[in-house]
Amino acid sequence: MYVLKGSRLYSTGGGCCEALVYRIHGDPSKVVQLENMDLPSIGAKDVLVKMLAAPINPADINMIQGTHAILPDFPAVGGNEGVAEVVELGSQVESLKVGDWIIPKDAGQGTWRTAAVMAEEDVISLPNDIPLLCAATLGVNPCTAFRMLADFRDLKPGDTVIQNASNSGVGQAVIQIAAARGIKTINVVRDRPEFTQLSDRLKAMGASHVIKEETLRRPENSRTCPRPKLALNGVGGKSATELLSQLQFGGCMVTYGGMAKQPVTVPVGAFIFKNVELRGIFVTQWKKDHSDDGAFRGMLDELCSLVRQGKLTAPGYTEVSLQDYRTALNSAMQPFISSKQVLSFDPFWSK
Amino acid sequence: MYVLKGSRLYSTGGGCCEALVYRIHGDPSKVVQLENMDLPSIGAKDVLVKMLAAPINPADINMIQGTHAILPDFPAVGGNEGVAEVVELGSQVESLKVGDWIIPKDAGQGTWRTAAVMAEEDVISLPNDIPLLCAATLGVNPCTAFRMLADFRDLKPGDTVIQNASNSGVGQAVIQIAAARGIKTINVVRDRPEFTQLSDRLKAMGASHVIKEETLRRPENSRTCPRPKLALNGVGGKSATELLSQLQFGGCMVTYGGMAKQPVTVPVGAFIFKNVELRGIFVTQWKKDHSDDGAFRGMLDELCSLVRQGKLTAPGYTEVSLQDYRTALNSAMQPFISSKQVLSFDPFWSK
Repeated sequence: MYVLKGSRLYSTGGGCCEALVYRIHGDPSKVVQLENMDLPSIGAKDVLVKMLAAPINPADINMIQGTHAILPDFPAVGGNEGVAEVVELGSQVESLKVGDWIIPKDAGQGTWRTAAVMAEEDVISLPNDIPLLCAATLGVNPCTAFRMLADFRDLKPGDTVIQNASNSGVGQAVIQIAAARGIKTINVVRDRPEFTQLSDRLKAMGASHVIKEETLRRPENSRTCPRPKLALNGVGGKSATELLSQLQFGGCMVTYGGMAKQPVTVPVGAFIFKNVELRGIFVTQWKKDHSDDGAFRGMLDELCSLVRQGKLTAPGYTEVSLQDYRTALNSAMQPFISSKQVLSFDPFWSK
Repeated sequence: MYVLKGSRLYSTGGGCCEALVYRIHGDPSKVVQLENMDLPSIGAKDVLVKMLAAPINPADINMIQGTHAILPDFPAVGGNEGVAEVVELGSQVESLKVGDWIIPKDAGQGTWRTAAVMAEEDVISLPNDIPLLCAATLGVNPCTAFRMLADFRDLKPGDTVIQNASNSGVGQAVIQIAAARGIKTINVVRDRPEFTQLSDRLKAMGASHVIKEETLRRPENSRTCPRPKLALNGVGGKSATELLSQLQFGGCMVTYGGMAKQPVTVPVGAFIFKNVELRGIFVTQWKKDHSDDGAFRGMLDELCSLVRQGKLTAPGYTEVSLQDYRTALNSAMQPFISSKQVLSFDPFWSK
């Protein structure tokens, strides 16, 4: 029997939980298993938490498949994001109390489990007056969107941002955060059977324009907004090159993902004559760099404020019980899925 | 008979000069003609100058071929760079006197001619105590090198810069300016019959390392300098991707040219996990943006100071008389040429 602390498994005693564990890389629905696990005893600076909800994100799938740049040691617990409630405190814990909601600060802690012992310094509290699903999905995608809109160009109301992967978790957060600030968004999506419904849904969230990748360059797409200062790229390949071609002189493209599994290709003239700038963001690294300076706390406060005002909602989701994880993993890998799979937990305790 | 002012031809009277003119795009040695031209009368804020020396740069060739992003109106005089001596002043000229050396501030003024009438505001003076060939080639390549080393990363003595096209005019200026500041350079060149001689020559200029493109990734090239903060790309294509792979975390690649005529291709992971930044520079634009703030003057003063200290020399050159322009144009288009073709002028006056 294994005992779990963070994403590493130890062999000391304590409570017990259920967790989704994998020991080799491969097809998630084949290599992931639901297992019972002992929990370690709670150290002086640890907290015992029960998980409330944890999403299945593309990065989680890639980590299991072994294609992500950052891979865990085996055996590993899946999941990098989720919200939990503090159940018990170590003797020296000062910043948290029982009943607080927390999310992990870093990736790699393994959130697909009913309970965990985590170090106080590895988690950050969230107010529990926001919807549970918002809390479960606030720490990665909305944070990525927030940073991309804040850190690369000084965006004012009326400025334009263009993005691909507009229906992704990051894309939807970009639409909503930008709309709350009066920033226009041009949202590029792949063509699909339900394009009109998707377009309507994104526009209801605040999207200024929703455009198919294939029609981006057509002259009839003359738009009412100024050329974008900023492009947000979660795809790579041709899609990224198209975004670049839409930027204004001196514009910036920020890459946060590469769903097409193709590199970004840039004509030399875009650098020389259009003065474009290409950057990247990895929000996990940003959080590490800012773990002690209050910037992460400040960002979460701003995001929660948008949530309370109804300006930032969780992406469409499907709640799945832990026992149905195989179905959830398979669904998370379907193309064009608009609904995020979120595991919800029936805590299974034995102390 | 045409009369020339800037790169545009007018039909008013004045003095006369010889110029290398083209009226269609094509093979430079075929479409360029040596012609006599009338000069316009000198306006109140103009100066009459006699050209002393003007180089043939790759951008000049591309403009004639019609492949450059910026193309002149026809008929056009070739050449964007060169040094001239002031011969006569308009009545309201204040910043220049007869005998001063000047270089054009902007591209597109047409420098391949024995004389010209130029606006005071379109030229900038140079001290005439530096070698003529340095003066003729100071305004573009050394300025590009200077800006790339100054504007993108805070480089300290001991830091490393990697570049391709290391034997180009920009490349040689990068080596020398970096060496004068204690910055190490890794200089990538294409393989060629005289690699050893080239390597020795660049090292004599101050290059820390000279490496063939083909061997850049080999493990035996473990180097004694830290990974580069900055990569300077004048080539594009695979060569640019190789430079990128050598950068340190958070490094920056600046593109100033695309000799390979291939785009720059960047793995998505370089943006996300290595936090690389890609930028570009077009020194012609920089000069426009800084024409009145003293920064161009300050840069030229610093470059001239390096020249006087023997730390910045003109690239190897071949002086060619204006009459031998066809040979010069053909030579300028040969691959692997280390010697820059520079036109020298026997002024041909009639007033």
